[in-house]
Amino acid sequence: MCELLGMECNVPTDIVFSFSGLALRGGLRGPHSDGWGLALYEGRAVRTFLEPAAASLSPLATFVRNHPIKTLLAIAHVRRKTRGRVALENTHPFVRELWGRSFVFAHNGTVRSAKKLTLGRFRPVGDTDSERAFCALLARLESSFTDYPRARKELYRAIAEAGAEIGAKGSFNFLLGDGEHLFARCATKLSYVIREAPFKAATLADDEIRVDFASVTTPNDRVAVVATAPLTRDEEWVTGIPGEMWVFRKGRRIATLAA
Amino acid sequence: MCELLGMECNVPTDIVFSFSGLALRGGLRGPHSDGWGLALYEGRAVRTFLEPAAASLSPLATFVRNHPIKTLLAIAHVRRKTRGRVALENTHPFVRELWGRSFVFAHNGTVRSAKKLTLGRFRPVGDTDSERAFCALLARLESSFTDYPRARKELYRAIAEAGAEIGAKGSFNFLLGDGEHLFARCATKLSYVIREAPFKAATLADDEIRVDFASVTTPNDRVAVVATAPLTRDEEWVTGIPGEMWVFRKGRRIATLAA
Repeated sequence: MCELLGMECNVPTDIVFSFSGLALRGGLRGPHSDGWGLALYEGRAVRTFLEPAAASLSPLATFVRNHPIKTLLAIAHVRRKTRGRVALENTHPFVRELWGRSFVFAHNGTVRSAKKLTLGRFRPVGDTDSERAFCALLARLESSFTDYPRARKELYRAIAEAGAEIGAKGSFNFLLGDGEHLFARCATKLSYVIREAPFKAATLADDEIRVDFASVTTPNDRVAVVATAPLTRDEEWVTGIPGEMWVFRKGRRIATLAA
Repeated sequence: MCELLGMECNVPTDIVFSFSGLALRGGLRGPHSDGWGLALYEGRAVRTFLEPAAASLSPLATFVRNHPIKTLLAIAHVRRKTRGRVALENTHPFVRELWGRSFVFAHNGTVRSAKKLTLGRFRPVGDTDSERAFCALLARLESSFTDYPRARKELYRAIAEAGAEIGAKGSFNFLLGDGEHLFARCATKLSYVIREAPFKAATLADDEIRVDFASVTTPNDRVAVVATAPLTRDEEWVTGIPGEMWVFRKGRRIATLAA
């Protein structure tokens, strides 16, 4: 099992505070020491930092925390392997191009019968059920639309349906980014919080690190943070219902698709 | 115009010395200050470090130099934009998955009539002629083979022919990696050196940095380094003939395909 972290905002924001909380769980406070990854969008393109080793001990993870990169959309993951050995090719998040966009995917759980999924023209580089599930999801989208759909709600529906089908067996908690939205599916465990004015302080659940968001934001800022488990101890996190999928855009939850 | 750097070895090697030479040309000693990127393979997967800013001033480039990652195959690029604005999506090297492998591509030159190229199912995320040419190259490979060809020479031939066709107009110097080979096409300017026993010392052409390779290698090590212009002043670099493509594997030039 693994832990997921997503951030989606209306103004470029750095993910350092939340990523610090996640990184603590990557080997120091949590058992997720088999790798970590962070994907940061700039427009439709993305850059990733990936390491098949514990985040809590990683100089690269420390660098990322010390040199914050602001972004509107980020997806991070710490891994404790269930299937697939510890290797770069098995380190989330995974990236594929579809419709001239970088799609980013991270998964928590296990997809059963992943070998039987229809993958279309997408092929896994590694040997995780997660990457196969991502390939299957994109293959379904590609077969449903010839281009990025103008009718956004059709896209949301298609992703939710693909998630339900692929995750019918097993547990398919995932975060998916397309450069414009953060899609977050809860199969067993997922939470989110929206940070907006009036901003308050928050303390990491796993450490004494505290940030006063009022001092680092403007009144118009809005940030959605999604995580496997609440990362802070003094904010109100919304808990997901198994089977539902949230869609975030500009720091708002703009859609919830039922199971 | 841009500068290319590739490294392909028979034992995992860090690219720090050569990358330092390249980074110097990225804004400090050279005019290539519009971005830099570095792709490092681990098996069939790859990780990239990308920045749409000058390498010589980049904390991330400094981090990469200070925390060397060993690899069998690496491709790096410093950019001076000709087409496409300064942005992450226009920063080389580009990565796409084909046949369950990460293909990595970096280009020096200009491909004319890039808009007319047939791209198959690959679509550019950014707006450079380089990424379009990469998409066109992969589309040709995908239409020629249903899977990674066992007959490797057919692959070499297909890449060389695609390079010649796509680069027929303009200048198409490129480096292409598939996790197993480094393909290096010379259209106007490309050089390589093989470092092997007996190892000697070498000094960067653009700086006083000097490495005695004998002290950091074993007698069986073999490293091929390809660059737009020789990076060292005291080694014998082989200069490419316009139109030819080299194939490197395990630190050897194993094939040369004529124009």
